[in-house]
Amino acid sequence: MLGFRSLILSALNVCLVVMRVVASNIDFLLLAMVFEASAKVIDGKAVAKQIRDEITGEVSRMKDAIGVVPGLAVILVGDRKDSATYVRNKKKACQSVGINSFEVHLPEDTSEQEVLKHISVFNDDPSVHGILVQLPLPCHIDEQSILNAVSMEKDVDGFHPLNIGRLAMRGREPLFIPCTPKGCIELLHRYGFDIKGKRAVVIGRSNIVGMPAALLLQREDATVSIVHSRTKNPEEITRQADIIISAVGQPNMVRGSWIKPGAVIIDVGINPVEDAKSPRGYRLVGDVCYEEACEVASAITPVPGGVGPMTIAMLLSNTLTSAKRVHNFQ
Amino acid sequence: MLGFRSLILSALNVCLVVMRVVASNIDFLLLAMVFEASAKVIDGKAVAKQIRDEITGEVSRMKDAIGVVPGLAVILVGDRKDSATYVRNKKKACQSVGINSFEVHLPEDTSEQEVLKHISVFNDDPSVHGILVQLPLPCHIDEQSILNAVSMEKDVDGFHPLNIGRLAMRGREPLFIPCTPKGCIELLHRYGFDIKGKRAVVIGRSNIVGMPAALLLQREDATVSIVHSRTKNPEEITRQADIIISAVGQPNMVRGSWIKPGAVIIDVGINPVEDAKSPRGYRLVGDVCYEEACEVASAITPVPGGVGPMTIAMLLSNTLTSAKRVHNFQ
Repeated sequence: MLGFRSLILSALNVCLVVMRVVASNIDFLLLAMVFEASAKVIDGKAVAKQIRDEITGEVSRMKDAIGVVPGLAVILVGDRKDSATYVRNKKKACQSVGINSFEVHLPEDTSEQEVLKHISVFNDDPSVHGILVQLPLPCHIDEQSILNAVSMEKDVDGFHPLNIGRLAMRGREPLFIPCTPKGCIELLHRYGFDIKGKRAVVIGRSNIVGMPAALLLQREDATVSIVHSRTKNPEEITRQADIIISAVGQPNMVRGSWIKPGAVIIDVGINPVEDAKSPRGYRLVGDVCYEEACEVASAITPVPGGVGPMTIAMLLSNTLTSAKRVHNFQ
Repeated sequence: MLGFRSLILSALNVCLVVMRVVASNIDFLLLAMVFEASAKVIDGKAVAKQIRDEITGEVSRMKDAIGVVPGLAVILVGDRKDSATYVRNKKKACQSVGINSFEVHLPEDTSEQEVLKHISVFNDDPSVHGILVQLPLPCHIDEQSILNAVSMEKDVDGFHPLNIGRLAMRGREPLFIPCTPKGCIELLHRYGFDIKGKRAVVIGRSNIVGMPAALLLQREDATVSIVHSRTKNPEEITRQADIIISAVGQPNMVRGSWIKPGAVIIDVGINPVEDAKSPRGYRLVGDVCYEEACEVASAITPVPGGVGPMTIAMLLSNTLTSAKRVHNFQ
């Protein structure tokens, strides 16, 4: 009797699996037919430009009204080329919107104490409204103690745990929202995509992108799932999402079959892959396989030109917000 | 041509819906057949007793070794009967494990300033290792400013945003983990249920249970989704979970059909429902329909006797941890 029951159960189980496979493929066929390479490109470069123009206007209005110019201080320790490029780009971006920038470039062997001293000077300087320590720091410096030293009111990166705690809690307001996740949400807003009540999947759970992005989506009433390296069936879960934010740093990891027809995709990954045809020998791709995604998704950010330009725009926005707050300027 | 294609698409779509309905019902039939009323009862009362016994041992070991007795201060404002009961229970629990308890009972019309003064005294008192302000406070007192006044090192409730931020961040350690979510995870640990790599659904996103429970599950490498009042298909999402933690305060909201066969259920809800047969005219039920869940789940916490007793045990545990930390006692 028991043997017969097991047999029936096994048979039912096999049916179930077959039906699910068929069903998921019908889904995929359907979507490929309906959304033939039709995904709208979410133009981060254009949106970032628009935001920078708005910031330029606000900076000038503030200067005229109360004579205050927002200021951003950047501390760079060591000689990493990529860090130097990031810092230069931030400086240029500040100039382009009229924000003052202050830079301290310290040698690789600077002591932690010395870096802390510079932070303390910027903390006390009323012309500085945002302080940014370019990461990574040299190994002999404790990143956590450096970041904790930045005044909460000038933590334009938004990485202070007190800020993250407020971001997580209902009814609390963070002073600053971390730039990259803020940029992701801003793209959704500016393109008019609803977030409330949508299924959202965030791939990756880093402190600087994935985790705060999930908290932000939840604040906007999305139903959020976080997929990470320990997730057993990332494809199945991701396929349920109306909104996908991917921030893992794995080139082309998210394939077309991972995507629900009509989903909106924000691709934070910026991954170099070898490309003999490119003059530099490599090109940049996202976490999402762009060509496949275009056939399934309703909208997607390109890499480059998607989230990347938004990060610096949000840094400028946070610096402006900080200056407005300290001077109580609306 | 286009008409024919739409027809095919519609037909495929109908097939898909039918197959999904059948599939989900086969699931339900299968589970009902396999797990006939077989759920293991997760006995929170017994586990809490075991933890209290362990705490009693540690408190006594600490007293013998360094002459220090952990102390918990509770501040109660006003005359709410339920609050008075909670405070009395906490006091009794302290006594039962040898923790000193200090109580301040203030009248309903106490000023915020007066409450802050008491917190300040406890903050400075080295015999107090944990401070708890019983909520809710009377309307004229700002809850946030009261809770922010409690020293981080004595915030045994773990509700300080800095604590929550550290809980959310990888590589950071909170000083205290909020008691009820900590109790939920402790039940999973003590019963030997794996969390790593499992699908977990948290129903409810409150600051005191749902949100920190989700952060804790994620710290333990579960793949977490949070279902809340704006979620469109809570049943479908919940049915994917290997672990369900429900904390919404809706009697019997989670039905048998919401549960994956073999799932483990932690029911945080404690909801009074009318019951003419009960001498008090009501009885307490959870968020989960217990009878139906028993036929599907592999394990479940009863209400009462599940998570409830764990919350106070975790409060005692946090107070002990605090005393050990300040005296550097291992």
